[in-house]
Amino acid sequence: MEKEEKTAITPTREEDYSEWYQQAVKLSDMAERSPVRGCMVIKPWGYSLWENIVHELDDMFKDTGVKNAYFPLFIPLGFLEKEAAHVEGFAKECAVVTHHRLEKNDGGGLVPAGPLTEPLVVRPTSETIIGDAFSNWISSYRDLPLLINQWANVVRWEMRTRIFLRTSEFLWQEGHTAHATETEAMERTKLMLNIYARLAEEYLAMPVTKGRKTESEKFPGAVETFSIETIMQDKKGLQAGTSHFLGQNFAKASEIKFQSFEEKEEYVWTTSWGVSTRLIGGIIMTHGDDNGVILPPRVASSHVVLIPIYRSSDDKAKVMEFVEKLGLEIKNLFYHHRKIRVEIDDRDIGGAKGWEWIKKGIPLRVEIGPRDIAKDSVYIARRDKPHREKISMKRDQFAKEIVNILDEIQNNLYEKALSFKEENTVSIDGGARFYEFFTPLNKDKPEIHGGFAFSHWCGTNECEAKIKEDLSVTIRCIPLNQNTDKGKCVCCGRPSSGRVLFAKAY
Amino acid sequence: MEKEEKTAITPTREEDYSEWYQQAVKLSDMAERSPVRGCMVIKPWGYSLWENIVHELDDMFKDTGVKNAYFPLFIPLGFLEKEAAHVEGFAKECAVVTHHRLEKNDGGGLVPAGPLTEPLVVRPTSETIIGDAFSNWISSYRDLPLLINQWANVVRWEMRTRIFLRTSEFLWQEGHTAHATETEAMERTKLMLNIYARLAEEYLAMPVTKGRKTESEKFPGAVETFSIETIMQDKKGLQAGTSHFLGQNFAKASEIKFQSFEEKEEYVWTTSWGVSTRLIGGIIMTHGDDNGVILPPRVASSHVVLIPIYRSSDDKAKVMEFVEKLGLEIKNLFYHHRKIRVEIDDRDIGGAKGWEWIKKGIPLRVEIGPRDIAKDSVYIARRDKPHREKISMKRDQFAKEIVNILDEIQNNLYEKALSFKEENTVSIDGGARFYEFFTPLNKDKPEIHGGFAFSHWCGTNECEAKIKEDLSVTIRCIPLNQNTDKGKCVCCGRPSSGRVLFAKAY
Repeated sequence: MEKEEKTAITPTREEDYSEWYQQAVKLSDMAERSPVRGCMVIKPWGYSLWENIVHELDDMFKDTGVKNAYFPLFIPLGFLEKEAAHVEGFAKECAVVTHHRLEKNDGGGLVPAGPLTEPLVVRPTSETIIGDAFSNWISSYRDLPLLINQWANVVRWEMRTRIFLRTSEFLWQEGHTAHATETEAMERTKLMLNIYARLAEEYLAMPVTKGRKTESEKFPGAVETFSIETIMQDKKGLQAGTSHFLGQNFAKASEIKFQSFEEKEEYVWTTSWGVSTRLIGGIIMTHGDDNGVILPPRVASSHVVLIPIYRSSDDKAKVMEFVEKLGLEIKNLFYHHRKIRVEIDDRDIGGAKGWEWIKKGIPLRVEIGPRDIAKDSVYIARRDKPHREKISMKRDQFAKEIVNILDEIQNNLYEKALSFKEENTVSIDGGARFYEFFTPLNKDKPEIHGGFAFSHWCGTNECEAKIKEDLSVTIRCIPLNQNTDKGKCVCCGRPSSGRVLFAKAY
Repeated sequence: MEKEEKTAITPTREEDYSEWYQQAVKLSDMAERSPVRGCMVIKPWGYSLWENIVHELDDMFKDTGVKNAYFPLFIPLGFLEKEAAHVEGFAKECAVVTHHRLEKNDGGGLVPAGPLTEPLVVRPTSETIIGDAFSNWISSYRDLPLLINQWANVVRWEMRTRIFLRTSEFLWQEGHTAHATETEAMERTKLMLNIYARLAEEYLAMPVTKGRKTESEKFPGAVETFSIETIMQDKKGLQAGTSHFLGQNFAKASEIKFQSFEEKEEYVWTTSWGVSTRLIGGIIMTHGDDNGVILPPRVASSHVVLIPIYRSSDDKAKVMEFVEKLGLEIKNLFYHHRKIRVEIDDRDIGGAKGWEWIKKGIPLRVEIGPRDIAKDSVYIARRDKPHREKISMKRDQFAKEIVNILDEIQNNLYEKALSFKEENTVSIDGGARFYEFFTPLNKDKPEIHGGFAFSHWCGTNECEAKIKEDLSVTIRCIPLNQNTDKGKCVCCGRPSSGRVLFAKAY
C-alpha cells in the first residue's frame, strides 16, 4: 500500500471536520478569536477577501438603483418593541448599552456611570431604526421606490460561536427598500435573492438552492423569508443569504405612509435582505481540502504569488529582477474587470513559503529560480490541483494565459462543488428511509450524515418540530422550483403537496 | 441700491454661521439628526461623498504597504485601563454595554438582563484592542513593520453635538503600526500626516497647516500628536486629521515585544492615525456659500447633473434621447482615474430641480432643452460661479472639455480657500493686539472673530490655559515649519522661541 501523504491540516476533514475547519481558518491567517467573547479579529488575508466580495456585490446593488447610506449603531429600546415578532426574535441576544461614562469607585477601579434614561440596543439588524428614517423621507408615491443599503457591523449575542459562521459581532450589508405596491416589493425581494444566488455561484463558486423559509424559520417580523442554501463538505447546509418580504408589518410599526397617485394615504410595502462575513466560512467549507483553504479566483484575496528561489546572492539579484518585471506586467492585466492581485514573496525563510501559500488558498503559485530563468520559463502550481502537480511554462505564455488559468480554476471549483452537491442530494420517500438517511454511519463522527434530502412534508409545525427534535434536521427551504409530485409526509404520513429541502445545518 | 438677491440658505453665513451650517447640511440632503442622541443618519448624498474620500485614501494607504483588517467593536474595560492617560482621556465619554439580553418585567416592558461579568466599552478608538492583537502577531523583527488600518464606526458620548463635526457615533479609519525603531515609527507618523495633508489639499481643496500639538491637546496616551489644521469661513479652526507617535507607551501597556536582529527582546514603537466623517463638515464649511454646499469635484458625490427641459411630450422624447446619449458618453470618461459620475434628473417637478442641485453642491449643472438641441448645444452652470452665470457650449465640445472644467473648478475652490486662509492669517505680537484680534467686532455675532494668529508663546501650560479661559482660543498646533524668530509670549511676556498657531476651534 502506498504511504499516505501527510496533509498540512491536522486533523483531516474526514477525521474531524469541525476541528479541521478551525485549523484551516487559523493556518490561512484569515481570522482569529479575540479576547472579546464571541467576537473575531479579521486579519488582512480574510479582510481583503471580504473587500472583494463587497466590491462585487456593491456594484450589483448599484446597478439595480440601490444607494448606500448609514444609520445609527444604537437602537432605542422603544423602537425595537414596535414590531412584536421582531423584538421577540432578537431579545435573547442583544448587547445593551446602559451607561455613557466610566467613573472610579472607592477601590480606584472603573465602573459604569451616567445611566441612560432609555437603554440602547446595539443593532442586531436595522429594520426599526431605518423604518423610522423612512417614515420621514417618504410622503408621496414620487418618493418610491426607496432603495437603500448599508454596509455595517451588527451584534447578536450568540451563546455558541464559530469563527465567520456565527459570531457575536459580524460585518454585513443590509438592504432596506420601500414600495408603493405589494407586487413591486415582492419583485424586489426576489431580485435580491437572485443577486445573492449569482454572487454565490458565479463569484464564490458555491452552488445554491433558492427557496422560501417555513413559518418557524423565517425572519422575525417578515411575511416571507427567502434564502439561498448551500451544502458544505460535511454534508450540512449553510444558509448563505436571506431576502425578506416584510409586507406592511414594519410600515405599520414605524408609520411609513405615502400619498398614492390617487391621493389616498397608504402604508408602504417593505423588504430587507442581507449577506455577511458568514460567506467566508461558506467558501472555506465548500472548497477547502486537507491542505487548507482554497480561494475562488474571482474574489481571492490575491490571485498569484511569485516565489523567487535562489541560493547565492548573485542568483538573488538576477531572480528578483526577473520576478519584479513579471510582477509588474501581470499587475496591469485585468481578470473580470479587476486588476490581477499579485504577491511577491521574497522573505528569506526557505521552503516553508510554498506551504504557507497553499494553506492560504491562493489560486496560483509561481516558482522562479535560476534554471527557470535560463529557459525563460516559470514553474506553476494551481491550488485546485494536487500540490505536487506543477508545470513549466514559457514566461510570455504564462503572462498571456494567466487570465484563462484563473477562469479554469474558478470553473473547476464550481464544477467540483456542484458534483458534490448532486452526489449528496437525494429524493427520499418514507419515514424509515428518511430517518436512516440522517443517522450518522459512524457514531464517532456524528457530523457526517446523509446530506440534502428532498422529501414530502405535510406543512405542519408539529412534524417540522418533531423531525428537528429527533434528528436535528430542519427544513432548509421550500424550493422555488418546487417539485409538485404528490406524496406523503415523511413524519406523519399525511398527504403532502410537494417536496421540501431537509438537512442538518449550521 | 441694487435689490439684494434672495439666497437659497436662510440665514446667510454672515447673519448666523452656525445656523447657516445646519441649514446647508439639511438642504443638501447629506445627513440628518437621528432619534438616537447625538447620532446622525448619513443619507445617500453624504454617504457617497464619504465613499469617494474612502476610495482615495484607501489607495494612498495601500500604496505605502498598509493592509486593512477588522477588530472587535467592544473593548473589555480592563484593556482600556492598561494605559493610564488613555483611559483618563476617554472615560468621560464611553458608551458602556452591561447586559446581553432583554427580558420582560412585571409590567410587560423590556428591561436589560443577563449582566456581563466585565462591562464592555464601545470602542472610542482601538489602540488597546489592536495592541492586544499585535502582541500576539509580533515576535521577531521579521514581523515588523506591521502596518494595519481599519475602516470602522466609533462612539464618543459627546455632550454637545453638531452633525458631521462632533457626533456620538462617527465613521472613520484608524491606522495602527508597529516598528522596530523609534526613527521608523516617527517617519511613519509624519508620512501619514503628509498623506492627510495631500488628501485635504489635493482632493478636498482645503489648505492646511501641519503641526505638532501641545502637551494639553495631544491624544491621550501619545508621546506626540501631529495634526492638519484648516480654517473655516467663520475664521475658526478645524482639526481635520491627526497622526500620533505613541512611543512605547501602548507597547508597554499591551506587552508588544519582539526579538531584535541582535536577539534582544525589545518593545516595539507604535503609531496611530485617523480621519473621520468630520472631513465632510470641513468641506461644507470651507467651500459652501449662501446657496448651500459646494463639493470639490475630485470627491464629489456626483460630478454633473443633466437636466432635461421640455414642455410637450414630443419635446420630452427628443430631449430625453439627446440627454441619455450624452449621459452614456460622459459616464465612460475618466476624471482623475475615476469614472465621471453623472445624474440625469428627469423628475416632473419643473424649475425647482436646478435649485435642488445648487443646494446639493454638484459641480456642474447642464440644462438641455429643444432650443439647445436645435443648436447641438448644452447650457452649463458651474457651482463655483454665480448661479445665473451660464454658458452655452457645443455638445461635443462639452464632452471634450468636461474633464478640464472639473479640474478648473477643483483648482478654483482651492485657490479661493487659500486666499481666504491667507487673508485671515496674521502674525501678531503683543498681548493687547492679540486679545483685540480675538475679540468679536460685533457682540451679536461672537462666532466671527479675527482668524488664525501666529504668535509667540512661552511654552507653559499656564499661559495656554489662561488664553483658553479668557478668549476660548487654543493653540491649534506648533507648525512643522515653525518660524523661529525670537519674541515674547503674548500672555506673560516671557521669552518665546517661536510662533505657534492660535485660533478658536471646532
